[in-house]
Amino acid sequence: MKNKPLILVTNDDGINAPGIRALVKIMNTIGDVVVVAPNSPQSGMGHAITLDATLYVEQVFVNEGPQTEYSCSGTPADCVKLAIREKLDRRPDICVSGINHGSNASINVIYSGTMSAAIEAGIEGIPSIGFSLLDYTWTANFDACDDYVKTITENVLKHGLPNGIVLNVNIPNISKEEIKGIKICRQARANWVEKFDKRINPQGKDYYWLSGKFVNLDGGEDTDEWALEHGYISVVPSQFDLTAHHFIEKLNSWDLNKSVQIK
Amino acid sequence: MKNKPLILVTNDDGINAPGIRALVKIMNTIGDVVVVAPNSPQSGMGHAITLDATLYVEQVFVNEGPQTEYSCSGTPADCVKLAIREKLDRRPDICVSGINHGSNASINVIYSGTMSAAIEAGIEGIPSIGFSLLDYTWTANFDACDDYVKTITENVLKHGLPNGIVLNVNIPNISKEEIKGIKICRQARANWVEKFDKRINPQGKDYYWLSGKFVNLDGGEDTDEWALEHGYISVVPSQFDLTAHHFIEKLNSWDLNKSVQIK
Repeated sequence: MKNKPLILVTNDDGINAPGIRALVKIMNTIGDVVVVAPNSPQSGMGHAITLDATLYVEQVFVNEGPQTEYSCSGTPADCVKLAIREKLDRRPDICVSGINHGSNASINVIYSGTMSAAIEAGIEGIPSIGFSLLDYTWTANFDACDDYVKTITENVLKHGLPNGIVLNVNIPNISKEEIKGIKICRQARANWVEKFDKRINPQGKDYYWLSGKFVNLDGGEDTDEWALEHGYISVVPSQFDLTAHHFIEKLNSWDLNKSVQIK
Repeated sequence: MKNKPLILVTNDDGINAPGIRALVKIMNTIGDVVVVAPNSPQSGMGHAITLDATLYVEQVFVNEGPQTEYSCSGTPADCVKLAIREKLDRRPDICVSGINHGSNASINVIYSGTMSAAIEAGIEGIPSIGFSLLDYTWTANFDACDDYVKTITENVLKHGLPNGIVLNVNIPNISKEEIKGIKICRQARANWVEKFDKRINPQGKDYYWLSGKFVNLDGGEDTDEWALEHGYISVVPSQFDLTAHHFIEKLNSWDLNKSVQIK
């Protein structure tokens, strides 16, 4: 009998979030599940790692199931590092992160703790997927997407992923009947136009809350934003080689060495 | 007379770090400088943003010079957002981040607060550069690189940068005489092999310190790591469209929609 795959599960909303509970339930139908996830919400942590503080990790029981679970005081990237180096008996066959409460499509991938965990596993050469549902609420309903999450995970286990590529999967917040299917996409060009809410504290000092409005700058029908708006689950193959290879030749033409004025 | 360029300066080592002091000094010779930088070190913060806490920003005097300076309680990405939305009278002509104490070459770009600030400005469409010196110490000597930092900045002001591209500049820790020049590079494939230093706290609970060894997996002579090892300043054009465009066709061939088993 073939051994079951070892699946590392993590997230950025914290180990008690409904999203990771849904993901654990799905992964238990595929393989042996070990959860190493933050003990508190870490949204917007980007690819932060803990350098100047200590890390705690302890085995916990969250809910019924065959999975083993560890709660960690660090960031999502810390969780993956600790899992691989300290908590797993062998290399996981796959790492899945999420299901995030809220979108990690388009530019959100840059700020995403969910995707940073997936990328961290990708850097280690482990096939890896970040899953997100476009519902920010704690009462988000993850039932509609379970078959899709399972299928995408099983396909990554079957085909593998090339070194340097992880999948960024986003799921529209609609019913199972309304989901039109899966669409392979590119990351839409978008940004957040921040509005800082300026207030005065009881001591008379100004302070700000960061808030903002998401702006899609990209009309392309091959983008994740288009897919999500039109009822598809978006899958973007994402890489952590940030090199803009196409711009190297142009940069060379600037002839920077010629223009340096050494004193 | 042509107006002087408006230069936004930030970093991740904190507003008092010698590296940003050196950068401010260089930028004062090019344009009008406004500093908005973290009030404390933020290394390893990746692209974190502050969503669940308040942000303070106050004008400060750090040292002599014509620059205006603000100290901010947030992350490097927060600093850039606050600068653009709240503190600058007009859009900056360029954003420079650093000079970081320590390398942001190869995979370090992913964890880098210095580069996250540059990328944040890039998302806003502002030409942007992250500078880093390969010396982690607070007594790092930034004298060797001032002409190069100035030249690269002036060239970006002159030529601009395409939307979606920022420059990641790393400087070897050698004397001015030893620096061989500037080399346009791609990001080397590399990772950190972590070693978690496990200790026991006075209450008998295990905790960890994250430490690790950098491993360059890439022998290419066109990489930033090669350039730095051979006495060059590396310049990598870096992008925040993470899409692995070359893998989209292959992913489509998996035919994911066919294999979904809808209950």
